[in-house]
Amino acid sequence: MHVIVTGGAGFLGARLIQQLLSGKVGGQAVTRVTSIDLAPCPVTDDRVESLTGDIADPDFIESGLIQQALADDTGAVCHLAAVVSSQAEADFELGMRVNLDATRTLLEACRHHSARPRFLFASSLAVFGPGLSQPVPEAVGPQPRSSYGAQKAMGELLVNDYSRRGFVDGRVCRLPTIVVRPGKPNQAASSFASSIIREPLAGVEAVCPVDAGLPLWLSSPRAVVANLVHALSLDGETLGDWRTLNLPGLTVTVEEMLDALERQAGTSARDLVRFEPDAAIDAIVASWPGGLAVERPLSLGFQADSDFDAIIHAYLDDERGDELDN
Amino acid sequence: MHVIVTGGAGFLGARLIQQLLSGKVGGQAVTRVTSIDLAPCPVTDDRVESLTGDIADPDFIESGLIQQALADDTGAVCHLAAVVSSQAEADFELGMRVNLDATRTLLEACRHHSARPRFLFASSLAVFGPGLSQPVPEAVGPQPRSSYGAQKAMGELLVNDYSRRGFVDGRVCRLPTIVVRPGKPNQAASSFASSIIREPLAGVEAVCPVDAGLPLWLSSPRAVVANLVHALSLDGETLGDWRTLNLPGLTVTVEEMLDALERQAGTSARDLVRFEPDAAIDAIVASWPGGLAVERPLSLGFQADSDFDAIIHAYLDDERGDELDN
Repeated sequence: MHVIVTGGAGFLGARLIQQLLSGKVGGQAVTRVTSIDLAPCPVTDDRVESLTGDIADPDFIESGLIQQALADDTGAVCHLAAVVSSQAEADFELGMRVNLDATRTLLEACRHHSARPRFLFASSLAVFGPGLSQPVPEAVGPQPRSSYGAQKAMGELLVNDYSRRGFVDGRVCRLPTIVVRPGKPNQAASSFASSIIREPLAGVEAVCPVDAGLPLWLSSPRAVVANLVHALSLDGETLGDWRTLNLPGLTVTVEEMLDALERQAGTSARDLVRFEPDAAIDAIVASWPGGLAVERPLSLGFQADSDFDAIIHAYLDDERGDELDN
Repeated sequence: MHVIVTGGAGFLGARLIQQLLSGKVGGQAVTRVTSIDLAPCPVTDDRVESLTGDIADPDFIESGLIQQALADDTGAVCHLAAVVSSQAEADFELGMRVNLDATRTLLEACRHHSARPRFLFASSLAVFGPGLSQPVPEAVGPQPRSSYGAQKAMGELLVNDYSRRGFVDGRVCRLPTIVVRPGKPNQAASSFASSIIREPLAGVEAVCPVDAGLPLWLSSPRAVVANLVHALSLDGETLGDWRTLNLPGLTVTVEEMLDALERQAGTSARDLVRFEPDAAIDAIVASWPGGLAVERPLSLGFQADSDFDAIIHAYLDDERGDELDN
């Protein structure tokens, strides 16, 4: 089976591609992967082809490359490419173009493909707004307080409607905040959640822009990648009529994160984190729920990390063994 | 104050325009109205100008007519133009173009207008899916089972995000099924709900495509128009951060509707209704909730009809006095 991954050059996309190539999707071995992203996919493997370009650029869309990538053996499309939260807040047009329009372009290409591919859409806890009882029950609706969240919520509706109509076999995963991301900070409002662990572990100072008591809904990259592969592998019928799922996570306050950091790397590491409130970041991140109801996903075989200490361990393990340099 | 009404040639749009011209919006008298629709607005009044064209047509959009309509005195835009449920289900592209793209075009035009206009978006109970506890609590999210519902739910998210960003001063009203509509059946899946009352009252046979026990969430045209004017008149701050409201309605089963018909027009009228199940219509209409929680809208001054007999009376009254021939 051939799989297309948008955002395949990104941190999550590259790891998903690695994982896909080592396993099966719905009982079929993954024989080749096409990455679509601004940069080539960093995974060194003959089975990976990289299409470089901006999927939101009209010229790229009109080039027909997406349609060409959809081949007879294409069984799945994983749509991870996105403009992240703070960036979509700062540049409204860019967010609309990438997060909404490109999703629609991709769905339309799949719709007109001969086979009905599985379509995995990475959504986010950012679709939710503030003031909800925690954990947020599954039926509660998106009332996002960021353009990123609004665009992801619209994408969810699109994937569900395309699935209901039989255009694609969709599955929407609402990702928790992913911690610990390797590398450098990005333009996600939640970027600090990785920085306050990653930087001190490397002996570098980090800034926390939100209150220590703020609860976050977190998942390790490993758990998210395993859950995305699981979502892709499940039979569509198992998911029922509504294809949106909250991926499991852990509810951890910033303070609890720093406690775990201290347990793993001592007081000196913790002391490298200083608090500098940032109203713009707080307005986005504090509007997100600190926990979602995940009974149904857990019963479908999705998994959560055991605790935050294990998340730090996994990060240190990954850093030692990681071949990907992004 | 100048008000723009899309769908101003339609049944609801024309009545809204009549009502607006006889009153005030947010304390200001409505001095003129521009109707944008495929046909001219049937309201005969010097203060009404009709722009005829398809707001989803790229040529119409590029003509700049929408931007020109937005004048210094434009205080509000009421966006009622839509492709209705069965039509949006039958013609996916048309539904996307009118229900989603045109909404976005209009919001963009308002965003670039010098004043921040009030923006009223007519959404629908069709955003909801099946299997919900009734009445549906306010926090429950859209899981539509029709493309119409999905497109309206995306429009709701757009209007809310444009409001949050300060591009427009939005208000989204989820309309109940409107009964009794005058005139002829249309391509709304719920069209029968008017037909089974309107036709027998005129001595004509009517077909009911759904089960007699199905509960519907109904409102008279009078109540809906009054509620739309109220939504437009309220100060935006009153509505809070999330601008979507369920308009009040009545929960009435098809059987209870026919009981009321019999009370008003006798057994002979009721006998003109025959049941012929239609799976396509049932799949859409039976997925809609039969009742929504409306405590908050009622506390904000929105109103419901007293009972279904009153709805029939209002229809007969309107028919006698109505100057609008649509």
